[in-house]
Amino acid sequence: MPGCFLSDNSAGVSPEIMDAIAGANSGMAAGYGADPLTESLKARFADFFEREAEVFVVATGTAANALSLAACCPPWGAVLCHEQAHVTVDECGAPEFYTAGAKLCPVAAPHGRLTVEALDATFTSFRLNDPHQTQPGAVSLSQATEAGTVYPMDAVREIAAWTHERGMKLHMDGARFANALVSLGCTPADATWRAGVDILSFGATKNGALAAEAIIVFEPSLARSMAYRRKRGGQLLSKSRFFSAQLHAYLDGDLWRRNATRANGAATALSRGLSGLPGVEIVHPVEANEVFVRMPEAMADGLRLQGFQFLDWPKAGRGGRRLVASANATDDEVRGFVAAAKDLAGQ
Amino acid sequence: MPGCFLSDNSAGVSPEIMDAIAGANSGMAAGYGADPLTESLKARFADFFEREAEVFVVATGTAANALSLAACCPPWGAVLCHEQAHVTVDECGAPEFYTAGAKLCPVAAPHGRLTVEALDATFTSFRLNDPHQTQPGAVSLSQATEAGTVYPMDAVREIAAWTHERGMKLHMDGARFANALVSLGCTPADATWRAGVDILSFGATKNGALAAEAIIVFEPSLARSMAYRRKRGGQLLSKSRFFSAQLHAYLDGDLWRRNATRANGAATALSRGLSGLPGVEIVHPVEANEVFVRMPEAMADGLRLQGFQFLDWPKAGRGGRRLVASANATDDEVRGFVAAAKDLAGQ
Amino acid sequence: MPGCFLSDNSAGVSPEIMDAIAGANSGMAAGYGADPLTESLKARFADFFEREAEVFVVATGTAANALSLAACCPPWGAVLCHEQAHVTVDECGAPEFYTAGAKLCPVAAPHGRLTVEALDATFTSFRLNDPHQTQPGAVSLSQATEAGTVYPMDAVREIAAWTHERGMKLHMDGARFANALVSLGCTPADATWRAGVDILSFGATKNGALAAEAIIVFEPSLARSMAYRRKRGGQLLSKSRFFSAQLHAYLDGDLWRRNATRANGAATALSRGLSGLPGVEIVHPVEANEVFVRMPEAMADGLRLQGFQFLDWPKAGRGGRRLVASANATDDEVRGFVAAAKDLAGQ
Amino acid sequence: MPGCFLSDNSAGVSPEIMDAIAGANSGMAAGYGADPLTESLKARFADFFEREAEVFVVATGTAANALSLAACCPPWGAVLCHEQAHVTVDECGAPEFYTAGAKLCPVAAPHGRLTVEALDATFTSFRLNDPHQTQPGAVSLSQATEAGTVYPMDAVREIAAWTHERGMKLHMDGARFANALVSLGCTPADATWRAGVDILSFGATKNGALAAEAIIVFEPSLARSMAYRRKRGGQLLSKSRFFSAQLHAYLDGDLWRRNATRANGAATALSRGLSGLPGVEIVHPVEANEVFVRMPEAMADGLRLQGFQFLDWPKAGRGGRRLVASANATDDEVRGFVAAAKDLAGQ
Repeated sequence: MPGCFLSDNSAGVSPEIMDAIAGANSGMAAGYGADPLTESLKARFADFFEREAEVFVVATGTAANALSLAACCPPWGAVLCHEQAHVTVDECGAPEFYTAGAKLCPVAAPHGRLTVEALDATFTSFRLNDPHQTQPGAVSLSQATEAGTVYPMDAVREIAAWTHERGMKLHMDGARFANALVSLGCTPADATWRAGVDILSFGATKNGALAAEAIIVFEPSLARSMAYRRKRGGQLLSKSRFFSAQLHAYLDGDLWRRNATRANGAATALSRGLSGLPGVEIVHPVEANEVFVRMPEAMADGLRLQGFQFLDWPKAGRGGRRLVASANATDDEVRGFVAAAKDLAGQ
Repeated sequence: MPGCFLSDNSAGVSPEIMDAIAGANSGMAAGYGADPLTESLKARFADFFEREAEVFVVATGTAANALSLAACCPPWGAVLCHEQAHVTVDECGAPEFYTAGAKLCPVAAPHGRLTVEALDATFTSFRLNDPHQTQPGAVSLSQATEAGTVYPMDAVREIAAWTHERGMKLHMDGARFANALVSLGCTPADATWRAGVDILSFGATKNGALAAEAIIVFEPSLARSMAYRRKRGGQLLSKSRFFSAQLHAYLDGDLWRRNATRANGAATALSRGLSGLPGVEIVHPVEANEVFVRMPEAMADGLRLQGFQFLDWPKAGRGGRRLVASANATDDEVRGFVAAAKDLAGQ
Repeated sequence: MPGCFLSDNSAGVSPEIMDAIAGANSGMAAGYGADPLTESLKARFADFFEREAEVFVVATGTAANALSLAACCPPWGAVLCHEQAHVTVDECGAPEFYTAGAKLCPVAAPHGRLTVEALDATFTSFRLNDPHQTQPGAVSLSQATEAGTVYPMDAVREIAAWTHERGMKLHMDGARFANALVSLGCTPADATWRAGVDILSFGATKNGALAAEAIIVFEPSLARSMAYRRKRGGQLLSKSRFFSAQLHAYLDGDLWRRNATRANGAATALSRGLSGLPGVEIVHPVEANEVFVRMPEAMADGLRLQGFQFLDWPKAGRGGRRLVASANATDDEVRGFVAAAKDLAGQ
Repeated sequence: MPGCFLSDNSAGVSPEIMDAIAGANSGMAAGYGADPLTESLKARFADFFEREAEVFVVATGTAANALSLAACCPPWGAVLCHEQAHVTVDECGAPEFYTAGAKLCPVAAPHGRLTVEALDATFTSFRLNDPHQTQPGAVSLSQATEAGTVYPMDAVREIAAWTHERGMKLHMDGARFANALVSLGCTPADATWRAGVDILSFGATKNGALAAEAIIVFEPSLARSMAYRRKRGGQLLSKSRFFSAQLHAYLDGDLWRRNATRANGAATALSRGLSGLPGVEIVHPVEANEVFVRMPEAMADGLRLQGFQFLDWPKAGRGGRRLVASANATDDEVRGFVAAAKDLAGQ
């Protein structure tokens, strides 16, 4: 069977997680997060991150992001983010909705990665403390990015320092956080709060869960109103145990790492196999589980005729395509794709 | 093992639904609702309701209610609902959030059931078409109600007619819709659109699902912006197939009916067993899966000592308690509870 | 010419205020509140209130109330107010809009005056710190009330103490603050911050100004974001000098007192003249500039035939009418009204 | 006395308007817009615009803009506007507040004027009818622009056609509408609805009024909910007659034209006098009442030492300054400024 590289959301659920869901289905448990699996999540994440943090489980990444930004930023605030960031491009204004009308400020920078220079150019366009303008309230960076790249840790630290010096909060959209961690090879603590991240959307759904995202609040003041915001958003799950069970299984036995390692590896293999083919150009460095590539129309058509699935991606330029490797990607699928591409390229 | 009557959310997931979730975990599927299980839901519900309707899956009942009311009511609108309605008492202002600030108007009426008379008294306090006031936009009724009662169908029809004559929309909070259907013995069509319901929060979670609620839109104009509202609320599930699978399993083989029949039966048995005991008073007619009862402190303490679980319920008056029978309630649990209560009552 | 008792908004502008507006029209002045007249307002009000306070000028009472409540209460908060309060009955949901969806909780109590007992009954219906519910955030009382009564100062102090003990803020809707002050005979300081008021909507428009309301913030934390909220609401006036000039003129020479004394006196005279007439009943104690009265249809018709103007007021019961005396009410108008009523009553 | 070119808001009120305010102060009048002066405004504007339109008076331009955009654009909509537009740069998120979280999309184009090409580049970046994204709902153009330029009428017509073809509405921010009209020499009808404008913020405050802006709704569907939106925003003025009186006086006797002619003339004279001086560069074509100019620091300092007032304007580049000529600008002030600049330039 040919490979499907449409989206990591297209993949199913890891067996370990499916087992955990089934395992949680025993007897009665208090609703709305007062069950033991949810109550022990905080300690589980404290272990993972090597420090205490507040943990709020929600069902979607959009909810995690929008709630996080609402905690960081008043309605008259502005969120500086990359111009390709999911929060500003792909969430139908959820951050605007949850913040009660804050402004998302898109910042251009290469390969999906904000830089202090680019942030600064936007920041200095604000008149600070002038009530005629919204005021910079937060920076949101995606780790891994929407371009399939990963911020090196010194870049995160530099952005965090810059952000805090200006009185703003730093949000990390970690829809693909595990992919970034594997790519960086650093600890979760180093990747987040030790670098200065105040609040993290910790995604598991794209990396093998059914539906489980956690808002991890490192800066305690941001947690104060979160329980109200979450309920008000319709994001407090009544049978929370089945969502918390997913996160336990995700962290236990390093499932997150195994899944992300597989996905990243598949993306790397795809990119290696494709690069150098005539008419093929890898658009961004491949550092996580996504490959952005330009390829001739004939090659794309040929691959699809053979059953391979992937999206056209106009933002990547003429002939742009996006290949996303999921945690379920097999070596066969990758090899098959590369072989077919080579064949179509006449090599 | 003694019985747990805390909440229908405390119960686990029906095996048929757990199987369906596992069964959906095969191969790749398009994300965000473009998968076959989600796409066939509309036809499945059309069959169930004997007509076309738009179907929007979300993860929580609060989201279903708040999105529904936002479709019915502009920000300067008012929602008339029972003073005990979940939408005004237990959702932390989610309807206010999703409607961008509409007003929930609590209406008092016996046993959790709105009446046209009570609605009319509230309605006539509005100055219609006067921009100094919010304007009545929707009526929201809960079927079954928060008092464990069920509206007879002529009551729904009467309220619907009254509502439409005044240019408002009728929302039904069906968090316990199956319990009401079983109690009424009527068809889903008769219980909803044929009676004049414009939009329904169709709940499955309290009746055996893991997390699956559907907004069923009978009045087409209310569906127009729902996809945007849902995404913006962070309620569009990326791996939708696992939520849609639950709803298929819930409808297939009448699981909804079997579960609700069991839950309603347990509540009826509890209420019959308790009524007549000294110091015990059944507060509301028991027509679904909830029993509201006043009992002496000593009886409540004694039952809890034996491991039975239930909530104190001050709204039911002095000594008020709430017993909720879930789809998993067993005859043993019910018999055990009644026997223990009788024993404690010295009978 | 017969009297018009429709509304204090029907009256024109006091000559002193009109002169001040004309007087402000000289030369250039910085816009948006950076002009000398606006900048000196803070000191002027500090003198009036015998302490420092932040002052924010807006054009309408609705804006002053809604902005004040937004400063007091988060979106998941609740505002306890009298069931007849302007903020919940007559502002088309402006407080819900400005707070981003807080809940207005109407409290019933006689003669428009909240009592600690009535507040307590509502307050205890909340489950505190439970994220399933909005949380009590503020109490809003109107001084003078919508029933034409005035809170005695010990009542305000008692409500303030009760409010603060529960961690809430106290807002005073002073659309008719001058009328209350004159009625109470106490100092502005005693009527507000010394009694525990945190934030005041200081109205001048109903008492002789053209359009000038000031938000007076006694509790400094409530002022922090007000400049942003005001601008965002479209309430920052570009040529502020012409609004600040009104407030200077209003405070200077005790214009506020002279106007309110006249209006209150007229209401008292109306009420004295009417009371005891057959079929006539004064509904609320007349303590400010409004008279709520029941009178026979024939009398109301007869008065209107002679050109007198006033509103029917169904909330005051069968035959209810509202007479509002403005700062421009003349003795002749009052005497004429009373004489005509007596005549129609056959006396 | 040297000239003040800080802002048109720094100027006072035209005598004709001050007289009209005073003239409105006679007797009682119904509040909240039911007075004769307000009620006749609609006919007055119908005459001005040669067709019926709904008219809503508010006190600030920010309110007029934000209410207009809220009528055009749902919360999940996007407003395309120039990157320097007041609505996105200078209103502290008022449009986001009033629309309940729509997205303002800044579009770059020369001299403050949107072009169809620039709009199209932004528009085509949207995925239409995709609920993951906000959807283009309105175009907002400023006439005259924030760069002191004016759209030629064929440009407005072209933008309107482009906007309507894509199902969007066209808003015109006419804070300086009179200046544009004078510059264009066309009729108000030609400048607006005949060209395809759906809704206009008709500003008078910057051109001689005290505080009076009118939302003119040409597309009737946009007027439906405006009365509620306005009240809810705290923008319904209780003593409306004093605001409507300003607009009558503004339209009567062509005061708008006389004022704008003077202001535009002064700006033109300033620009002519400055252009060609060494080190001086006129940044944008001077087509209304604003001059954006780069001048050496020494010249700016020298002018200020002599008492001339104007703002530094970094957006206009190094040495950028903004000179705004108000309706009160005198020939002496202009000549004095030019002479001083020449002198400082050593000419």
